[in-house]
Amino acid sequence: MLLGRVVGTVVATRKDEKLEGLKLLVVQIVDIQNKPGATYVVAVDSVGAGTGDTVLYASGSSARQTASTKDRPVDAVVMAIVDTWSVGDQTVYNAE
Amino acid sequence: MLLGRVVGTVVATRKDEKLEGLKLLVVQIVDIQNKPGATYVVAVDSVGAGTGDTVLYASGSSARQTASTKDRPVDAVVMAIVDTWSVGDQTVYNAE
Amino acid sequence: MLLGRVVGTVVATRKDEKLEGLKLLVVQIVDIQNKPGATYVVAVDSVGAGTGDTVLYASGSSARQTASTKDRPVDAVVMAIVDTWSVGDQTVYNAE
Amino acid sequence: MLLGRVVGTVVATRKDEKLEGLKLLVVQIVDIQNKPGATYVVAVDSVGAGTGDTVLYASGSSARQTASTKDRPVDAVVMAIVDTWSVGDQTVYNAE
Amino acid sequence: MLLGRVVGTVVATRKDEKLEGLKLLVVQIVDIQNKPGATYVVAVDSVGAGTGDTVLYASGSSARQTASTKDRPVDAVVMAIVDTWSVGDQTVYNAE
Repeated sequence: MLLGRVVGTVVATRKDEKLEGLKLLVVQIVDIQNKPGATYVVAVDSVGAGTGDTVLYASGSSARQTASTKDRPVDAVVMAIVDTWSVGDQTVYNAE
Repeated sequence: MLLGRVVGTVVATRKDEKLEGLKLLVVQIVDIQNKPGATYVVAVDSVGAGTGDTVLYASGSSARQTASTKDRPVDAVVMAIVDTWSVGDQTVYNAE
Repeated sequence: MLLGRVVGTVVATRKDEKLEGLKLLVVQIVDIQNKPGATYVVAVDSVGAGTGDTVLYASGSSARQTASTKDRPVDAVVMAIVDTWSVGDQTVYNAE
Repeated sequence: MLLGRVVGTVVATRKDEKLEGLKLLVVQIVDIQNKPGATYVVAVDSVGAGTGDTVLYASGSSARQTASTKDRPVDAVVMAIVDTWSVGDQTVYNAE
Repeated sequence: MLLGRVVGTVVATRKDEKLEGLKLLVVQIVDIQNKPGATYVVAVDSVGAGTGDTVLYASGSSARQTASTKDRPVDAVVMAIVDTWSVGDQTVYNAE
């Protein structure tokens, strides 16, 4: 999995029927020190995440292992909202 | 998933029989600010997308989760035509 | 999927028994303007492709969805020989 | 698989229910000479690894093949703590 | 698949039980001209490969399609020892 920040959303009305009801988040990927880079991913929300949240997302077939994404044509899912993460003795991120 | 723009098509008559009837789109991948980069993907169309459309595509085994791509040897599918996407307070793209 | 040009073959006599009878092609990946880059892939042939052909290949589990590659330990398959592809108004490649 | 060093942990209380009870490790990926690079991965622990351990991790659907990760929305798992590794005649790493 | 050279091994005693009995090879990836690069992969041996051999390996779920790797948490397998490979009229590599 990788860490990222939710920075936006994608809206699409013409889509595969299996995408109905899914919320599509634009997630900017961050590095190990919580610095955002140039890469992003569009991921389905499975935990009620919103803009500004720091999240964990899974890719590939693993993205289809949540109740909301099972058997759907999606390759990325946000499945956790991060509270804190640490690297060595340092707290890199704290949501509070 | 990633966002891209449909820029062309691929035609192949000698192909695996499971590819019969599928439309192959050349999709130029765009960055989070809708700027096209050097990378592309050839993806199967599952939503009636055509040249000029901005689309969302899925990769890997997830690309086989639409009715038109099930069990076929394809690793990318266009499964949504994008109306709008936003990053922060900014509308990056609006199809209208 | 990505586009590439078949530039060679790989021969291996000591191999997993599930690879028996498969033809292994060296495919040089090309960019959206048909320019070959530094990257390559070794892919199983499923359509009778040979050196000089421009082809489409699929990766990952999707590479196991042809009759010749089902359940085999291969992660790339050539499943179409390209006739033409276009980008915008331009024909980038024409096999004839 | 790739080799990495466990450098931290991620804590998330709002998450998909299938993530309950899993320990999330921040793993800094190392190169073939055991030099850490800029890339990392968040992986589920399946072997009791902790900060400072040098580990082997698997990605993609293979990450769901341990008892603790089966059917869960996770795409990386630490499944071995490395004792030693060698390159040519050289011992690159020795845990003792 | 990609081509690589076996340059070493990894030893791990604390590991997921499904890894018992598997030999872990350090494989340095080579380019289309047989020149080694900076990247490597740790792959399970399924064909009796050893240090110095030039091999073909498969990644992802395809790595679990050999008798020795089925259902195991491994994402790369060496499944062929290369005899020769050619690019155009040139023999790039010949094991003899």
